[in-house]
Amino acid sequence: MIESTRATDAPLQRLLLERIYSATGKAWRIGITGSPGAGKSTLIESLGMVAIEHGHRLAVLATDPAAATTGGSILGDRFRMTSLSSHPNAFIRPSSNRGSDTALSRRIRESILVCEAAGYDVVIVETVGAGQSDVTIADVVDMVIVASLPNAGDEVQGIKRGIMEYADIVAVTKSDIDRSLALRAASQLRSALSLIRSRFRDWQARTAIVSSVTGEGVGDLWALCEQFFAPTRQLSIEQNRRQQRRRWFEEALIEALIDRVRTEAHSAHSIERIYSAIEDGTVLPPIAAIEIVHSWRTSQ
Amino acid sequence: MIESTRATDAPLQRLLLERIYSATGKAWRIGITGSPGAGKSTLIESLGMVAIEHGHRLAVLATDPAAATTGGSILGDRFRMTSLSSHPNAFIRPSSNRGSDTALSRRIRESILVCEAAGYDVVIVETVGAGQSDVTIADVVDMVIVASLPNAGDEVQGIKRGIMEYADIVAVTKSDIDRSLALRAASQLRSALSLIRSRFRDWQARTAIVSSVTGEGVGDLWALCEQFFAPTRQLSIEQNRRQQRRRWFEEALIEALIDRVRTEAHSAHSIERIYSAIEDGTVLPPIAAIEIVHSWRTSQ
Repeated sequence: MIESTRATDAPLQRLLLERIYSATGKAWRIGITGSPGAGKSTLIESLGMVAIEHGHRLAVLATDPAAATTGGSILGDRFRMTSLSSHPNAFIRPSSNRGSDTALSRRIRESILVCEAAGYDVVIVETVGAGQSDVTIADVVDMVIVASLPNAGDEVQGIKRGIMEYADIVAVTKSDIDRSLALRAASQLRSALSLIRSRFRDWQARTAIVSSVTGEGVGDLWALCEQFFAPTRQLSIEQNRRQQRRRWFEEALIEALIDRVRTEAHSAHSIERIYSAIEDGTVLPPIAAIEIVHSWRTSQ
Repeated sequence: MIESTRATDAPLQRLLLERIYSATGKAWRIGITGSPGAGKSTLIESLGMVAIEHGHRLAVLATDPAAATTGGSILGDRFRMTSLSSHPNAFIRPSSNRGSDTALSRRIRESILVCEAAGYDVVIVETVGAGQSDVTIADVVDMVIVASLPNAGDEVQGIKRGIMEYADIVAVTKSDIDRSLALRAASQLRSALSLIRSRFRDWQARTAIVSSVTGEGVGDLWALCEQFFAPTRQLSIEQNRRQQRRRWFEEALIEALIDRVRTEAHSAHSIERIYSAIEDGTVLPPIAAIEIVHSWRTSQ
């Protein structure tokens, strides 16, 4: 229900969200991103099991745009998360994200809230870090873990594609294949990360080396998560959430206004036509904005 | 008039902008940013004179938030731009930016348009690259030059503060003081820049070494600007402008809507109160957005 984008579901969605909102906000919201093949699913499986061993209840929201093209990776995800998917304290929600060009589900924030209200105190959001969608992983979670293959070329690509700008932890995966390669990759990443602006004043991006096969380093990675969510960092995390809520509001405001214009205005005011006139440079952006607000106000 | 933020000036501003808009868009829009003391003003003076020698007409819009605290730097700017400020083909508009916490004037986009309509075909916007304001330099110009002192610590700070993420050219300034230091700084910057995502697919960030005192490298820097604005890159620059116009429209839409709510709605709907309830997490962002649009629509 909460994932639905059908207009007829909107009233029920709204009722549901209003009822649960006060029971939300208590989970650690962790994003896991990285290129396809970087080992995100197996990392979630092993990290998730450690979280559960520490007494947490875990929800995983996996949005994988690749599923739309390959048709098979969601099934693959479930297959790779065998321990988690059969554990009573874990909930896995795959989302094929069909028909959307963004890396995240349009209702990802709402889905997180529903998981929190259901009592999950760790919510992991998995996504391919395309970094090009309007809503990025950093807009919806507290902490971003970037999964990176132990391959010198790969992490430079990750930096170039802008993924590293959101990284609070970079996890070098598949260390069982070649441990010295993984160590070298982690060291290169550390010096690259020291050049990139941190998202938080009180958190410098860290690296971790993990193997989901042998379990090496997964406990250390979870310990880093615990450091990130330490009580001393609560203010910093809450400050980030305040900004996220503000941004969500402003996005929703534009969406609500444009939805109204779309359904109510005359065809001459078609929002698509307005957008192209603005982009073409034939209509001044602030004047179009004022006219939309004004004409809509007086057209009743 | 165009810089005014008084509500009573809005109708005339709007009329002015509508009249001139079709005569705008033909200038090269260049942003120059960098820490205080990095030599921005003298760089603009020397680069500007080269542009004029190449037959261009130059407008400089200098917004310096430091002026609000020191009270003197605008006068200092004018003093440092002596050749430019007395040249018939140059126009310098300092703006003290008092009372605003952003690094750019609120009406910077409109000011650029007015300069273009007045026939200036190069517009330089100077700002301290705080990178924290809502509207950043990269939102309003085509190309960003970052002025950087030849100091190893300085450019790393620049990268950390996020300035380098917007750099299309980094100009290492004051090379006359210590040329080998400047060369080393440029080389370090080049390797750092290769790790940062480029803003354009067809432009990798470059470095230049300049001395505004001896004039060394200023001609080369101008040649880089000419490369950036080469006819082959026109599509890429226009694509960037389309995105800028779209973003300007969405910002203006929020502003127009919130202005209306502020003037029309009951005190219970005070926009400041709504914002804090959203940030506190007591009101759901999308529901607040829908309610604002709905209640305002039906309150007439």
